[in-house]
Amino acid sequence: MKASEITERDLIARIAKLLAGPGDKTILGAGEDDCAVIDIGGEDYLLITTDMLHRKTDFPLRMSGRQIGWMSVAVNLSDLASKGARPLGVVMAMGIPPETELGFIEDIARGMDECAEKSGTQIIGGDTDSHDELTMVGTAFGLVRKELLIRRSGAKAGDLVCVTGALGTAGAALIALEKEIPVSQEILKPLFEPFPRINEGMALVESRAVTSMMDISDGLALSLHDIGKASRVGFKIYENRLPVLPAVKKLLKGGELLEAAVYTGGDFELLFTVAPGKLDKAKKACPLTVIGEVVKGGFSIEREDGRVEELKARGYEHFGRD
Amino acid sequence: MKASEITERDLIARIAKLLAGPGDKTILGAGEDDCAVIDIGGEDYLLITTDMLHRKTDFPLRMSGRQIGWMSVAVNLSDLASKGARPLGVVMAMGIPPETELGFIEDIARGMDECAEKSGTQIIGGDTDSHDELTMVGTAFGLVRKELLIRRSGAKAGDLVCVTGALGTAGAALIALEKEIPVSQEILKPLFEPFPRINEGMALVESRAVTSMMDISDGLALSLHDIGKASRVGFKIYENRLPVLPAVKKLLKGGELLEAAVYTGGDFELLFTVAPGKLDKAKKACPLTVIGEVVKGGFSIEREDGRVEELKARGYEHFGRD
Repeated sequence: MKASEITERDLIARIAKLLAGPGDKTILGAGEDDCAVIDIGGEDYLLITTDMLHRKTDFPLRMSGRQIGWMSVAVNLSDLASKGARPLGVVMAMGIPPETELGFIEDIARGMDECAEKSGTQIIGGDTDSHDELTMVGTAFGLVRKELLIRRSGAKAGDLVCVTGALGTAGAALIALEKEIPVSQEILKPLFEPFPRINEGMALVESRAVTSMMDISDGLALSLHDIGKASRVGFKIYENRLPVLPAVKKLLKGGELLEAAVYTGGDFELLFTVAPGKLDKAKKACPLTVIGEVVKGGFSIEREDGRVEELKARGYEHFGRD
Repeated sequence: MKASEITERDLIARIAKLLAGPGDKTILGAGEDDCAVIDIGGEDYLLITTDMLHRKTDFPLRMSGRQIGWMSVAVNLSDLASKGARPLGVVMAMGIPPETELGFIEDIARGMDECAEKSGTQIIGGDTDSHDELTMVGTAFGLVRKELLIRRSGAKAGDLVCVTGALGTAGAALIALEKEIPVSQEILKPLFEPFPRINEGMALVESRAVTSMMDISDGLALSLHDIGKASRVGFKIYENRLPVLPAVKKLLKGGELLEAAVYTGGDFELLFTVAPGKLDKAKKACPLTVIGEVVKGGFSIEREDGRVEELKARGYEHFGRD
């Protein structure tokens, strides 16, 4: 069987099964969560996450060097954000085609630096290599107080389901680019320069109101299934509660809008569940929208007309699909 | 100007210049050393290092999946070893061609796991991505007691220059493969399954005899120049003191042997300088060979016939050369 014949999540599960079980200092290991979590003694856990991006699938030609650098850092910081970690730094391995102009590489470095700096951290090291395809692999690491660690597995039936920011903006930008419809920076920026929700993540774990959290860069639906699987729960969300920018509502209608907001991915927002009675605490942490509730089992979305449909485990994956 | 027109070290220097200066918690930052070093409070520094390897330049077709996995972990652990760090874990981003057989990917995972386990650590996370070329980017991190941190910049004139293990074995294996000369595992293994000198590194920093250290995977000569530049010193080494396996001496003669031992790279040994009078302490830490001494300036090698030649800054680099 070939890699293309299974899903990315199945491939990760296969690899994780071959690795030695986590040692006594590994709180969360390979394949379990957005970050690996290590006990380094003291009052904090060390969190670490890595992500590979490359020209063919992640950097359309209209992305600037600066945006490529920004994005390569943002994907990693977004994983740290989903654990409420205080970032310590980012290292970046860059595979660079030999014919690349130095000015373009310098723009990438500027974008990396800018994203790190605006997120309160910095690029502290890396590697450069000659590679046929522009390939950027960032690794971000940070700290979180032990008693504030939130896992994907903490959601309970009755919890409220919340998201930061707006949904479907990156999906709308993708569709606009495909159809060559001119759109504003308000729509394009979340696709090419997503802002990692580091501050929101830190404030949310400090609120002690959150029971599970992850980022939705692979899409809301797939992320709900990931939390559901880890927590052994289901979800019901409501189409009319999904936060969507007015400009996106103008651009997309009906099924296309739902597809962008729920399945497409690319929005670097946080998805989290809040214990009943603690919504006020969560609201003090950051702006949020309640989009549904945790249920005992099953994944569904109530459409605007009242119909209830299945919420499929479909979203952005690098390999084949079920 | 294009990336191919400058050296890898110059490219890294250009990128590092564009990044924000290290924050007050960054002890060593981008481009300065084998690892980035961060102050996380407490009695230890956190060390982190990342390395990109890929099919075209790093994984000849005769390497097995297991060896590819092993090597991808070993390159990173070797950087930790050069700082005497106790490894905490490794994360691995894997770019996999979709047509790759799952069995081959599983062999890679087994090799990763084996190298980590034999080095006293583990694979704790990663990422998988579909990629035209097999691309492996590992990131290793570990801890070192603050008072034991050794920098590249600590060498002083009069120090002794030492290495662990043997030199030129990987280079001899490369030549044997090119010329299709059958050779033993003793020669092939250091090329395809180099053993990171984690234990030696930890013992050497504990000895408090070492003034600077790095690994020589890019070659002895280039590494001496790196330490020389950071420490503002020069080096004199002696051909007749270079530790070379008898089997390698049988295979290579004269200039070819010197090339393999000094310039080719691929040996995952530690190069370090020892303060005068502390050689006994260093010898108690691990087996070592004294190959020369630190001098005030200039880089030279005394050949077996007594001639003194310049030791050039030449070795393994991913981009163009001076």
